[in-house]
Amino acid sequence: MRRWNIAVTGFGGVGRAVAEQLANRRARYAARYGADVRLTGLRRSKSAAVDPDGLGRGDWDRSAPPPEDFLDAAQAHVLIEAGPSDFRTGGPGLGYMRAALSSGRHVIAVSKGALVHDGPGLRELAARHGVRLKISGAAAAALPTIDLIEHDLAGCEIVSIEGILNATSNHLLTEMMERDVTLGEALAAAQGAGFAEADPSLDVDGWDAASKLLILLNFGLGASLTMTDLSVGGVGHVELDDVRRWRDAGLSPRLVAHARRASDGLAAGVELRTYPASDLFALARGKTKAIRIATDAVGELVVSSCASEPAATAAAALKDLEHILATG
Amino acid sequence: MRRWNIAVTGFGGVGRAVAEQLANRRARYAARYGADVRLTGLRRSKSAAVDPDGLGRGDWDRSAPPPEDFLDAAQAHVLIEAGPSDFRTGGPGLGYMRAALSSGRHVIAVSKGALVHDGPGLRELAARHGVRLKISGAAAAALPTIDLIEHDLAGCEIVSIEGILNATSNHLLTEMMERDVTLGEALAAAQGAGFAEADPSLDVDGWDAASKLLILLNFGLGASLTMTDLSVGGVGHVELDDVRRWRDAGLSPRLVAHARRASDGLAAGVELRTYPASDLFALARGKTKAIRIATDAVGELVVSSCASEPAATAAAALKDLEHILATG
Repeated sequence: MRRWNIAVTGFGGVGRAVAEQLANRRARYAARYGADVRLTGLRRSKSAAVDPDGLGRGDWDRSAPPPEDFLDAAQAHVLIEAGPSDFRTGGPGLGYMRAALSSGRHVIAVSKGALVHDGPGLRELAARHGVRLKISGAAAAALPTIDLIEHDLAGCEIVSIEGILNATSNHLLTEMMERDVTLGEALAAAQGAGFAEADPSLDVDGWDAASKLLILLNFGLGASLTMTDLSVGGVGHVELDDVRRWRDAGLSPRLVAHARRASDGLAAGVELRTYPASDLFALARGKTKAIRIATDAVGELVVSSCASEPAATAAAALKDLEHILATG
Repeated sequence: MRRWNIAVTGFGGVGRAVAEQLANRRARYAARYGADVRLTGLRRSKSAAVDPDGLGRGDWDRSAPPPEDFLDAAQAHVLIEAGPSDFRTGGPGLGYMRAALSSGRHVIAVSKGALVHDGPGLRELAARHGVRLKISGAAAAALPTIDLIEHDLAGCEIVSIEGILNATSNHLLTEMMERDVTLGEALAAAQGAGFAEADPSLDVDGWDAASKLLILLNFGLGASLTMTDLSVGGVGHVELDDVRRWRDAGLSPRLVAHARRASDGLAAGVELRTYPASDLFALARGKTKAIRIATDAVGELVVSSCASEPAATAAAALKDLEHILATG
């Protein structure tokens, strides 16, 4: 049985769910892939737990100073990066990912910062060292996006993409439409329920959706775009007057990340669009995410997913792990 | 560059579209997989065209007596089986598939007959000889089904499946609902347009949907079911009175293939169900197919696809080919 040691950086809700699911699925990995999968390193910002023989559940909250070279100490074969996203610099996640790829380790990215900051660079680093860089957890997680393009639609030309990729903004728009509240009121309620961030600007202004789109285009379509190539709008300007007008017209507003092949590459961005009741996007209410992919050979595919976080994001990362285990 | 010779059995609409797409994608296969993919054998019921160096477009309609051992003569590495489905005996397709798997060749099934007749047997044969048996083209083709379960949701427990898998019956129900015509009238119009078969019983009575479900459960969930394990109904009993009642209640009827984990295995079948306008299945009109998969870890996923045949079915088969090329 081949040994697979997993190191996790970032131990918030998703990191913890990853550890839980890894522990629960050990028998599956052994039976299906002949893989002895062990969690051998967990790193928080200021502490770490490391055991190259495997960390038991009781060890997860051990708090020791992080070893100089965490990945070596954990004897990791795979890094799962689930730390906070720093879109400006890539943050510590970028350093971990570069170190892992450069030393021949596979990487599963959950946080988006490093991928947005230097996706094409990381992609090349992985290719140069012959390892995999998987990004399902960072590109809408429970909603399959990259898998659809790379696997389910392999061989098809992607003509255009449209996606509801940010759950918070979709929830806010749904609340405004269905409860006739202002954006501020919907936001305050969502923050009160612990669903929206204290600083909601990433979600409300479209940057979270844009990040996911950028990652999807760079990794799924081999593009080399940066944020400045995208035209990004949000929902901050939506007034109750707009909402009432749409409702009267039978339209549903959605914040949509979109891309289309153009003569000079890809035209891509995030903007508010409205959909009639006959469109599947109109039914993607609340925290539902959805994506529509138009192809040359198999027409149009629409996928929608309603999943609960953070378990679903962890499951997306561990799906990526299975793809790595399957091909060695 | 590694040589991959492809043999195709069955040269109707799908087989021809496979040959077309194979020819169009040769450069892609070389660039992406380092694969020199050539069509080396085409077999109809009473004739064949074979050239181990590759058949050009001008050779496809060559009509020579089929060689004794077609697969050997074509020096095939992969068989794409696209002949007519014989659900009772498995038909010639079963013979070709068994011969290919037994001699260490990968098989891509498009026709359903052999898979329904002896899916578990073929699955074991493939495992014994260390080759792949891929079935996307036989399990709803352009609508990804097996890929969702095996790849996009890898590691998740599948709790239940619900699918609109037969386009003809969905088209007939949609016509009845939207044009207030009887089933007989809708069927006659579809036959006149060349869309429904002269003998529509496979579609109308639920057997086509049941076949796809059976293949999906046996190959995607590792089940070993036969048709007798499924409770199969159709749309033949639907009257205009039913249609009017559903319309008044805001419901949409769909012929649905369904499966759910039960204490003693899987409870599965095909039956008519009705959906309110808020359900994504209500928007799957006409020739649209859709599937809903409920999981433990990532909630519920709904996928819908509107694709044009036979190109989409061929594209599904060639997606399977890329999965084979990717892993060697």
